[in-house]
Amino acid sequence: MSQFWSSLVHTLTPYVPGEQPKVSNLIKLNTNENPYPPSDSVLKVIKEVADDKLKLYPDPNADVLKQRIADYHNLQANQVFVGNGSDEVLAHAFQALLKHDKPLLFPDITYSFYPVYCGLYGIDYQQIPLTDDFAIDINDYHQECGAIIFPNPNAPTGRLLELEKIESLVKSHPNQVVVIDEAYIDFGGQSAITLVNQYPNLLVTQTLSKSRSLAGLRVGFAIGHPDLIEGLERVKNSFNSYPLDRLAIYGAVASFDDETTFQQTCKAIIGTRLELVSHLEKLGFDVIPSKANFIFATHKDFSAEDIAAKLRDKSIIVRYFNKPRIDQYLRVTIGNNKENQALCKALSDIVA
Amino acid sequence: MSQFWSSLVHTLTPYVPGEQPKVSNLIKLNTNENPYPPSDSVLKVIKEVADDKLKLYPDPNADVLKQRIADYHNLQANQVFVGNGSDEVLAHAFQALLKHDKPLLFPDITYSFYPVYCGLYGIDYQQIPLTDDFAIDINDYHQECGAIIFPNPNAPTGRLLELEKIESLVKSHPNQVVVIDEAYIDFGGQSAITLVNQYPNLLVTQTLSKSRSLAGLRVGFAIGHPDLIEGLERVKNSFNSYPLDRLAIYGAVASFDDETTFQQTCKAIIGTRLELVSHLEKLGFDVIPSKANFIFATHKDFSAEDIAAKLRDKSIIVRYFNKPRIDQYLRVTIGNNKENQALCKALSDIVA
Repeated sequence: MSQFWSSLVHTLTPYVPGEQPKVSNLIKLNTNENPYPPSDSVLKVIKEVADDKLKLYPDPNADVLKQRIADYHNLQANQVFVGNGSDEVLAHAFQALLKHDKPLLFPDITYSFYPVYCGLYGIDYQQIPLTDDFAIDINDYHQECGAIIFPNPNAPTGRLLELEKIESLVKSHPNQVVVIDEAYIDFGGQSAITLVNQYPNLLVTQTLSKSRSLAGLRVGFAIGHPDLIEGLERVKNSFNSYPLDRLAIYGAVASFDDETTFQQTCKAIIGTRLELVSHLEKLGFDVIPSKANFIFATHKDFSAEDIAAKLRDKSIIVRYFNKPRIDQYLRVTIGNNKENQALCKALSDIVA
Repeated sequence: MSQFWSSLVHTLTPYVPGEQPKVSNLIKLNTNENPYPPSDSVLKVIKEVADDKLKLYPDPNADVLKQRIADYHNLQANQVFVGNGSDEVLAHAFQALLKHDKPLLFPDITYSFYPVYCGLYGIDYQQIPLTDDFAIDINDYHQECGAIIFPNPNAPTGRLLELEKIESLVKSHPNQVVVIDEAYIDFGGQSAITLVNQYPNLLVTQTLSKSRSLAGLRVGFAIGHPDLIEGLERVKNSFNSYPLDRLAIYGAVASFDDETTFQQTCKAIIGTRLELVSHLEKLGFDVIPSKANFIFATHKDFSAEDIAAKLRDKSIIVRYFNKPRIDQYLRVTIGNNKENQALCKALSDIVA
């Protein structure tokens, strides 16, 4: 506490990201990173552009990246916004598009940064309970509201809402912005990006951190009607002209140029997820159906917190949330084959 | 305009950064970039860390960089905040430390992002006129206020306020935060960082974009009392956990490890500045005394806007601001020797 803080700072409850341990030799399944390295061509391009031109400011509009993303999705560049990870993109979306007189709606169990953004920008919000089996029921969102946001697949549950239901929700709220946060869509879901040309109230956010193995590069983007994008640009250009550095801009472009690595990586993770779920079910876990690069699981005989602690003793980190409704669940990122085998063995030992 | 924008977005007047032209063969003296390349060791380190670990999130606290900056200035790591360029650092400072019931004070002629931040965060502000010769007179700041901010040297004037006057101002406002924005301090000024241990209300911001030739890497920092830093961290962690990517964190550390390149570069720019000023004065320009990597100059017989247009015809870009009090001035970044000779020749031709 300090007399020098603005009154807002005293009220904030900042987001706490998953641990980034500084020791090695840990199997890190706690922050939904991709177990596979980024495309070789991304690393090659970054090394190439790490040159004397770093003395110059990057393009404040990152036009080359916006155009590449637009081409990838058969859209126009003015339908694309880019930022420093999808967290920054979401922050701008909360300030630019989700603050209205009526409350913003999002699930009670969801990405825990959402209420933090609401605190930062003074946004009134209402949390809509997931169903008992942790699904989003769009009928629960048919009420007076300023806007709607949720991840699809949802986090930390991994549960997917079908595209038809997304469309139905967007269609039934023509005067409200609906943001679909697709950080995990590439692991088995169908993106709502295909709907943006039809619905001017739909904004879809994605990230290169998960399916493109580039959490360390900090690139996220949003796709929607040019008016929505302009709202984001106005806030971004009132905050920081150049959020993406030269290396991130060109590295991200290279990632979209290598479809093969992207597809192989996603396929491998989906395969490993199937194996992990099958093993967990044999061990007596209940696993929420996942279309993400993580699973959310509970065991009726063992405390989730205890399992997390015992895994940690075996040098495996997973994410445990001490929160209502989910305090008996573990969120476990899908690792590579070796990591998955180690995890399966450790869990077998723990519940033996 | 869009019904989907928050009411704030309708009121914003975003910052417009200097042009980043997409054609080459221009002599670019418009955005105060460094004409010399970054240290070879910075480029080497970036290439080294462009590896598989990009799949992982960077350290959200960038501890290794905070410690390096702290060591460089003989301070503790909890006195250091880092961000995506000093623009992001300043944005957080406006929200966390400069919004109070009484107005924020800054000069009428100064970095034009300040009123933009005030618009973004709803901060009441009052602009204090510079003296007739474009100096900051600290006596003009002895009034009721919530906080104070200005660049030192000031932009776009390049004029330095002596360290004793900064200290006097900070001392006479013990209950207000005073932010000194030192983007240009390394080109001839004395940093107020040496005062932070004495004054808990002083925050100093710096950037690696200018004197360290790393505008393309996006790294800035703030130094002050741990309470001020904590205020910034609370806002940052409510906005984006990871604003600095892996490449920026390690590249920035490497920059602080190469003192020789840093000193040589600053010295070369100071030398070229002296030559340019001498030439301009011979041509009949009045030049505001500069301790920055740019100069601010006017000519009694020629319109500044015309000179800028004629330079552009000769493929030289400088910055012209069509604003009260300064619409007869040009801001010219100090280039390398060759660029400076071309500029001097072009100006000689124009005013001949």
